[in-house]
Amino acid sequence: MMAAVRTARPLVHHITNYVTVNDCANICICAGGAPVMTDAAEDVPAMAALASAVVLNIGTLNERTVASMALAGRAANQAGAPVVLDPVGVGATAYRTAAAERLLREVKIAVIKGNAGEISVLAGLGGKVRGVDSVDAGDPADAARKLAQRTGAVVAATGPTDYVSDGRQTLTLHNGCGLLEKVSGTGCMVASVVGCYVGACGASAETVAAAISVFNIAAEMAAAEADGPGTFRPRLMDAMDALTAAEVEERLRTE
Amino acid sequence: MMAAVRTARPLVHHITNYVTVNDCANICICAGGAPVMTDAAEDVPAMAALASAVVLNIGTLNERTVASMALAGRAANQAGAPVVLDPVGVGATAYRTAAAERLLREVKIAVIKGNAGEISVLAGLGGKVRGVDSVDAGDPADAARKLAQRTGAVVAATGPTDYVSDGRQTLTLHNGCGLLEKVSGTGCMVASVVGCYVGACGASAETVAAAISVFNIAAEMAAAEADGPGTFRPRLMDAMDALTAAEVEERLRTE
Amino acid sequence: MMAAVRTARPLVHHITNYVTVNDCANICICAGGAPVMTDAAEDVPAMAALASAVVLNIGTLNERTVASMALAGRAANQAGAPVVLDPVGVGATAYRTAAAERLLREVKIAVIKGNAGEISVLAGLGGKVRGVDSVDAGDPADAARKLAQRTGAVVAATGPTDYVSDGRQTLTLHNGCGLLEKVSGTGCMVASVVGCYVGACGASAETVAAAISVFNIAAEMAAAEADGPGTFRPRLMDAMDALTAAEVEERLRTE
Repeated sequence: MMAAVRTARPLVHHITNYVTVNDCANICICAGGAPVMTDAAEDVPAMAALASAVVLNIGTLNERTVASMALAGRAANQAGAPVVLDPVGVGATAYRTAAAERLLREVKIAVIKGNAGEISVLAGLGGKVRGVDSVDAGDPADAARKLAQRTGAVVAATGPTDYVSDGRQTLTLHNGCGLLEKVSGTGCMVASVVGCYVGACGASAETVAAAISVFNIAAEMAAAEADGPGTFRPRLMDAMDALTAAEVEERLRTE
Repeated sequence: MMAAVRTARPLVHHITNYVTVNDCANICICAGGAPVMTDAAEDVPAMAALASAVVLNIGTLNERTVASMALAGRAANQAGAPVVLDPVGVGATAYRTAAAERLLREVKIAVIKGNAGEISVLAGLGGKVRGVDSVDAGDPADAARKLAQRTGAVVAATGPTDYVSDGRQTLTLHNGCGLLEKVSGTGCMVASVVGCYVGACGASAETVAAAISVFNIAAEMAAAEADGPGTFRPRLMDAMDALTAAEVEERLRTE
Repeated sequence: MMAAVRTARPLVHHITNYVTVNDCANICICAGGAPVMTDAAEDVPAMAALASAVVLNIGTLNERTVASMALAGRAANQAGAPVVLDPVGVGATAYRTAAAERLLREVKIAVIKGNAGEISVLAGLGGKVRGVDSVDAGDPADAARKLAQRTGAVVAATGPTDYVSDGRQTLTLHNGCGLLEKVSGTGCMVASVVGCYVGACGASAETVAAAISVFNIAAEMAAAEADGPGTFRPRLMDAMDALTAAEVEERLRTE
């Protein structure tokens, strides 16, 4: 699947937060995609219509950009490109929850990727989110499955263990490393890599799981070269860019 | 104090510029805090009310975000959380000066942290700021003291030597390194670390001075591992994350 | 010329995209400039009037920021400071093309720097741009020359080979390395370095070519120290900061 992504070089249109947007652009390139970021209402429909996938991230949302996300999502729906939603900080405030629900209502979302607390909130299972961090997630596998059933999307609940569900099967992923919790935006980066993979290979639980595992395996390899969270980040880009199918196969830990 | 911050994991709500926001998020995590960035008027009061501290930085201000800063500041005031103001580029243009003065009028600011020129401008002592850089600061210790007396805030004037004053005592801090001048946003990062410290330990001259010293000592340790301004930045995150109380005690240089 | 830039420390006012803005700020410092980013209509005329050069980049344009770019450009024109335009993604959508044409109409642009596809689009020679990447550029030297003749600007079409034309002479530059294609925003960074150079030395084909060559030579030196696109980026800042005139002379490859 990694080779297919690199060959396709999917154009991934992001409307995302201004905190971690640069890391999203760079991880997207290293994963094999071509990132583009644009959020003006006048520009978004044309760009989204050309994209292989659209990634919507509400980290630093406002009225203007949420409206643009809805426009981008609908343009991608019409063009048949998958839309990935990263509901950053949903549940932390009512405004964030309302924005995520609006996007789920107005756009056919192919993949929802959140931390375990965010997915639990959206599944209506009472997860807790503080700022943008999951602090209580209940049973994330159950939350992913229920949210997938309710929305028809593939749902990924990420954390030390990741769960990916299409409502029927739920995959459990064990790769990753502790440094991912020490860098802002690693969750956003996962959504960008998911955008590359579903843009090239279509949205399925297997494709989403492959994207998450590839990212987490790159993180493991980067951690081995890093002296802390600061040096981990450039090493993560290097590892993602250099990763081979053989390394993925050797390290993959899934159920 | 470092241990207290790491234990509390204070939620630090930033409304800051889009240039250095990622570094602010990451240094905040490495200092022991949990950063959140949101600036929509609809979202800000709820998030600020949950925060341990609020950091307002006018680096890339506009009408919308300055209004959100005022909202966030007032919500934090009501909730009893300290507000840190970083008046980036104040004095360089009239608009920046007016924005900083508006925030000082509408919000009870607990800490003002600026470069020496910015503090001198706000103190009415004729400092000069070019773009976002201090070019003439007069006597920064005097400026910090006078601005603290006028506003009731703890005031930090940073530079090769840092001065922190509550209007009665003025602390002089000698840690740091030349590479801090070669990286965009090191001043913004200091404000984020100050946010973590006052969010966990309350706003006092001692707490603000501790935050600045911890940051500057991490910078010294990072400089020893760096080959220039580029490699210094990831090393700064590593050093901040790994810093121990013993290292701080050994290296601390204050008057 | 490198020494002149470092001595002048030109103030370079950027209105640029939120994806790569931090890299622009840092490369500007490492090249010898003083970056400032501000885009509020109320702030822009005063800041641009103080600047040594203004860099306008439409990567994440919207109505508000394009209007501010026009304001900044006109203020710089009045003050006699050169304006650099980076028409990111022009040709990918009609909105981007219209924005670039508006800026060319309302502002006297001293330098246009784009990838080969963008320059070909603006020259009316049918280049193709996908997202923000050049996918078909025709003859970039011809495009640079024609666009220079039409606009009166110095035009740089960048890529594996770079072409700089003032409409009469066209310089061909061969420095650089493959990793530049693997990092988001290297084109934006080039525009920032060009801003430093024309801010200090005036806009001419020679000055623009010198800026591009200096950046590309720093990239070659950084590539020798990097393990991939992630570690390349901090190394690029280190190399730009440490670069000597002797190294530039030794490595320069131009026609």
